[in-house]
Amino acid sequence: MSIGIFDSGIGGLTVFREIAREFPLTDIYYFGDTARVPYGNKSRETVIRYSTEAANYLKGFGIEALIIACNTASSYAGELLKSQMDIPVIGVIEPGVEMALRYTENGKVGVIGTQATVRSNAYRKLLEKSGIQVFQKPCPLFVPLVEEGMVEGEIPRLVVKQYLQELVDSGIDTLILGCTHYPLLKDTIKQLYPHLKIVDSSQAIADFLHREGLRFTGEGKRRIFITDESESFEKFKKMLVGNIPLEKVELSEICTL
Amino acid sequence: MSIGIFDSGIGGLTVFREIAREFPLTDIYYFGDTARVPYGNKSRETVIRYSTEAANYLKGFGIEALIIACNTASSYAGELLKSQMDIPVIGVIEPGVEMALRYTENGKVGVIGTQATVRSNAYRKLLEKSGIQVFQKPCPLFVPLVEEGMVEGEIPRLVVKQYLQELVDSGIDTLILGCTHYPLLKDTIKQLYPHLKIVDSSQAIADFLHREGLRFTGEGKRRIFITDESESFEKFKKMLVGNIPLEKVELSEICTL
Repeated sequence: MSIGIFDSGIGGLTVFREIAREFPLTDIYYFGDTARVPYGNKSRETVIRYSTEAANYLKGFGIEALIIACNTASSYAGELLKSQMDIPVIGVIEPGVEMALRYTENGKVGVIGTQATVRSNAYRKLLEKSGIQVFQKPCPLFVPLVEEGMVEGEIPRLVVKQYLQELVDSGIDTLILGCTHYPLLKDTIKQLYPHLKIVDSSQAIADFLHREGLRFTGEGKRRIFITDESESFEKFKKMLVGNIPLEKVELSEICTL
Repeated sequence: MSIGIFDSGIGGLTVFREIAREFPLTDIYYFGDTARVPYGNKSRETVIRYSTEAANYLKGFGIEALIIACNTASSYAGELLKSQMDIPVIGVIEPGVEMALRYTENGKVGVIGTQATVRSNAYRKLLEKSGIQVFQKPCPLFVPLVEEGMVEGEIPRLVVKQYLQELVDSGIDTLILGCTHYPLLKDTIKQLYPHLKIVDSSQAIADFLHREGLRFTGEGKRRIFITDESESFEKFKKMLVGNIPLEKVELSEICTL
């Protein structure tokens, strides 16, 4: 029994880690499209094409559920993949929204993410259906900050403030981290704004799988595929999920899908 | 008579602007691989493949010289393209090194760029041939800062200091901006370190073309091709080179090259 997790690059490893913890017996296949990362600054059409290729690659392993651990891909390609694949497809949007609805008391929720995620309005649309007032803000510097390992100290504090102060001033009580890299800035955000309830996609997805009653058993296999080698991936993988070897996927294979 | 300029994305527009200014009659074709930007975090093999595709695309317009306005591509693919193409191929490395040799008085030169550019040691090797002592530092946050328009104020000042202080402490008198985005941070760098002589690739290339005696005449045509639409490209294009329309290149075309 197995799950596939797909991300544009590194960030989805925060989801990998959480799923691996919560479902120790499940076989987990991770696909990081490191040769074409990031997706956040690319067009809808391109993100859909890349996401379809990744989903098809993982399907080759007989996965029984697909997690799109990338907000941009979930926003742009989530609905399409759900309609095209014959297994459950879980994006990061619904689980995050569900958790935010449980957290918020004043009905004001902030959403941060890449340009593409914010522009897609995927979180906003779903939250507004439940009568929530939504305040959005793209934070393009957060991903490079995290990949530089600058998650504590003066620079991340100033950058977090630069992006989040206006959301906080709008009176939000809950903040959705709409990008899988952002949980690594959670401590800095909490220090600056201790009253905020923070929705972390990786926990939201694990919660969602439990609540949906999905049960997976297997041999606890873990395999990580990437489309290009990169130092930051290697660094993050080690930090988050330890010594699972990386397996390089040739791009030509993907191009022919 | 025409020149092709190729970059992984936006940054090469600083070169486009300078060449357009210095050679007003030359036809200029720009190719920005915005669907796969950035190259700086990708492997040598992948960067070579992408660069070859871009060079072949521009060759289709009968260009008589090719400028690789991307440090990562120049470092990884420059030599190969020079040997494969039957027109002059000019990377950013040699012009930058030439200018640094003219500037430095104490023989200590700093080089900043992406991870890939620094790791390639392309600048270092060439500078050391002339007996220069080289101090390198990758600055992965500079590109996203520039693309966010954060080129002045407290955050860029702190980030510039975080990266450059150790180079300055080593006693360099000249700094090569080994990435075409970096000229937009030149003012902040100058404010912090007014004694540094700064080598800007775009000026170095225009200088180099003049010194090599290359003369181009034509109709002053300017065409800009991109592989994916993006807001930051549109924004930068307007800021740097005005209202030249963008022409979208289908990726499938490129894949088949």
